[in-house]
Amino acid sequence: MVADVLRRQIHDGDLTDALDERALIADFNVSRNTIRDALAILTEERLIERAPRVGTHVVARKLDHGLDALQGLKETFRMHGEVRNTVKIATLVDAPRAVARRLQLVDAQAVYIERLRYLDDEPISLDITYLVPDLGIPLLEHDLENNDVFTLLEQISGGPLGHATMTVEAVDADPHSAAHLEIGSGTSLLLLERLTHLAHESRPVDLEYIRMRSDRVCLRSTARREVAGS
Amino acid sequence: MVADVLRRQIHDGDLTDALDERALIADFNVSRNTIRDALAILTEERLIERAPRVGTHVVARKLDHGLDALQGLKETFRMHGEVRNTVKIATLVDAPRAVARRLQLVDAQAVYIERLRYLDDEPISLDITYLVPDLGIPLLEHDLENNDVFTLLEQISGGPLGHATMTVEAVDADPHSAAHLEIGSGTSLLLLERLTHLAHESRPVDLEYIRMRSDRVCLRSTARREVAGS
Repeated sequence: MVADVLRRQIHDGDLTDALDERALIADFNVSRNTIRDALAILTEERLIERAPRVGTHVVARKLDHGLDALQGLKETFRMHGEVRNTVKIATLVDAPRAVARRLQLVDAQAVYIERLRYLDDEPISLDITYLVPDLGIPLLEHDLENNDVFTLLEQISGGPLGHATMTVEAVDADPHSAAHLEIGSGTSLLLLERLTHLAHESRPVDLEYIRMRSDRVCLRSTARREVAGS
Repeated sequence: MVADVLRRQIHDGDLTDALDERALIADFNVSRNTIRDALAILTEERLIERAPRVGTHVVARKLDHGLDALQGLKETFRMHGEVRNTVKIATLVDAPRAVARRLQLVDAQAVYIERLRYLDDEPISLDITYLVPDLGIPLLEHDLENNDVFTLLEQISGGPLGHATMTVEAVDADPHSAAHLEIGSGTSLLLLERLTHLAHESRPVDLEYIRMRSDRVCLRSTARREVAGS
């Protein structure tokens, strides 16, 4: 689809300024309507703006969030701006059974943190975090507004994090998330569920549900071919 | 969020049958309204169904699509059912400039394929594929209805595929995609852009834009911690 190719060009910085409808028609060898549909999609995604006389311009680029390397948001975007967090909730809770099982909790208590995360002045992610209490309770004493949970977990545990298993889904923004993220209700969001383990004990310590604005962030990854097998 | 935890339990097969509202209220320690909101989200996502008298039941589980291993859909889902493809378009085209650059095309011609992909009787993915002509033209002679493009590329090139770079986004379904995928227009879809290289030549040969139904498929990946660096 035309919108997909253009979206990628914007993302890569190959398209940085004005888009010319006639040039696009020639390049893609499609009808004017097809180009207009594509530009409407990108306008809806807030990557371009169209105005009479001024024409069509690129106004935003998405940021890359690597799926291969396990990094907090502040680490990931340190070249792009300042990440700060508004902490909505940070407290000890009785964890739901499913959370208790995944974090292998003994007495079903977990630290629960809800943060709205900004890159400079723009909300980009709404994160829900469950932490094992032996690390989570000390973590509550730290500056959660200006630090990634990953960095704090490594400070408190005295060792590095190891690996994380992740699931990526596309979900409609519910009204609560939409209001916080300053987008329309129903807008497509990336939902990343991530279970992170300590390296030296290989136990799970951090279960997160991260809703990212897909108009601002895209996930990058690399895959290798393996023999398909039987 | 309650819906996220339940979604994951359904996905893992921990919740397979009836959901009891009162048990959920106790487990999550939240209000009845919060549980009802969560169940409404999962109903909307077609993972559960709610009916008077019958109560609330799990009706679907998402399928895992691994982002780490580079596999075609037929390979990925071979344990879950039969993948077949309806080929909408398969022809040589003048590639748009951005595609030509990414596939390093010499004369800007590429093979363009549009396929609607079914798992058993359900459409799960709408794929747009651009192939380099030296592999793509011979590929057009093969059975595209019943084979992954990856498998055919390896047959034709006589060697294995190597690696792929991928970008994952969440996008609203446009009317065309929605109609093909049998979902509502505006529903959140996973959009996977994937550029695949041949192993022995490490040249890019296959650029794909894959729209997957997020109510049926989720992407899985693993990340490792690296030293954050300066």
